[in-house]
Amino acid sequence: MVKRKLETCFSPALFESGENHDSIVVIIDILRASSAICTAFANGAAAIIPVADVSEAKDYKARGYLLAAERDGYVLDFADFGNSPFNFTKDKVKGKTIVYSTTNGTGIINLASSAYMTVVGSFLNIGALTQWLIKQERNVLIFCAGWKNRFNIEDTVCAGAIAEKLMLSDLYSTICDSTLAAMDLWSLARPDLPGYIEKAAQRTRLRDKKLDDCIEFCLTSDYTDKIPVMKNGVLVDIIL
Amino acid sequence: MVKRKLETCFSPALFESGENHDSIVVIIDILRASSAICTAFANGAAAIIPVADVSEAKDYKARGYLLAAERDGYVLDFADFGNSPFNFTKDKVKGKTIVYSTTNGTGIINLASSAYMTVVGSFLNIGALTQWLIKQERNVLIFCAGWKNRFNIEDTVCAGAIAEKLMLSDLYSTICDSTLAAMDLWSLARPDLPGYIEKAAQRTRLRDKKLDDCIEFCLTSDYTDKIPVMKNGVLVDIIL
Repeated sequence: MVKRKLETCFSPALFESGENHDSIVVIIDILRASSAICTAFANGAAAIIPVADVSEAKDYKARGYLLAAERDGYVLDFADFGNSPFNFTKDKVKGKTIVYSTTNGTGIINLASSAYMTVVGSFLNIGALTQWLIKQERNVLIFCAGWKNRFNIEDTVCAGAIAEKLMLSDLYSTICDSTLAAMDLWSLARPDLPGYIEKAAQRTRLRDKKLDDCIEFCLTSDYTDKIPVMKNGVLVDIIL
Repeated sequence: MVKRKLETCFSPALFESGENHDSIVVIIDILRASSAICTAFANGAAAIIPVADVSEAKDYKARGYLLAAERDGYVLDFADFGNSPFNFTKDKVKGKTIVYSTTNGTGIINLASSAYMTVVGSFLNIGALTQWLIKQERNVLIFCAGWKNRFNIEDTVCAGAIAEKLMLSDLYSTICDSTLAAMDLWSLARPDLPGYIEKAAQRTRLRDKKLDDCIEFCLTSDYTDKIPVMKNGVLVDIIL
């Protein structure tokens, strides 16, 4: 049996568009966009419209949409709320379509648009996501958002955790150094994930901005079985 | 005391030119360019002229220079030899100026030209290199060549080994996730470096091409105290 290909990309600057027509791309931006998106669907959001630029976000807001928007961790003044998963509460998001503009996340979703399918991953949905991936007959590319095009530790460790679960199925093979390194870093992080993430630059940035209250939550496995998937430019629940 | 900044870049695609005017950039391409260059100087080469394209390399050859040139591991037919450190023997290179064209290496040297200084690192010169760096009052950027713009394990592990030695001096600080991850991967690789490198894609590529005879040598620490440095477009021995 030919095994499926498993690859990992550490940064949008390393993404090879055109290489992934046959792959499911899993977007990872655990501190905090991909965790927030998983939380929104866990709390009943109907859809999330990712937008790249501020003026587009403003237009949606004027048309009555709920707007989540931040730049560098700070909530934009015309937005309803920012990027913390704790903002996406049931009372705010249930049944709603949310417009979402973030520093990294939306640009990455556009980059991945050449893929067979794009889904959103985090520790919060890791079990459901990997079980679902295993059921698909597809190559997988784990695409880490990084930070301003740089490698980051937190997304890499999550990529390693996902990769490990997939490799255990024996359905995938990888000759991708990034995947192998991510799995090794995950092996170091697993015994004390919050302790390991202490060293991440984003951990420090969020602490400095007093935006770090959600980190422990973002590192929690299997909070939800929702898998956000991109359909016609909008994120919706994949509905298993 | 303000500590010096230590950073690591995993791929030319992640290199931020213009950010490194004050830094010493250490170029790492251990399988095999940076190991070959260190070996050449250990064996008495006078200088190495890195060239990017094949026609420029041909011109030099026509003018009587010794030419090392490969593409994807294969020696170009008009070259004197390729990219294995075992080619750069004393009888061939002593006192000579060598023109050197490789898949990755020369492009990276050009990228790093905005830095304060560019030196070449490998396991072969790691002790001398790090001792010299510690004596300089400069920030350091460890620049991994990677493979076709991708992250690779072998350069990352070497970067981690260099970073560890620098951090032990207590003169550097880092908030760079790439550096921290590289040091962690080095901690996993150190007990059995050849065994760890077995998983690297480049390990497999070199084996498939029967070019892997030099790998054990390339993973040897402190074969030489030579530090190749870029001066006016040419690599020369830094002369301590």
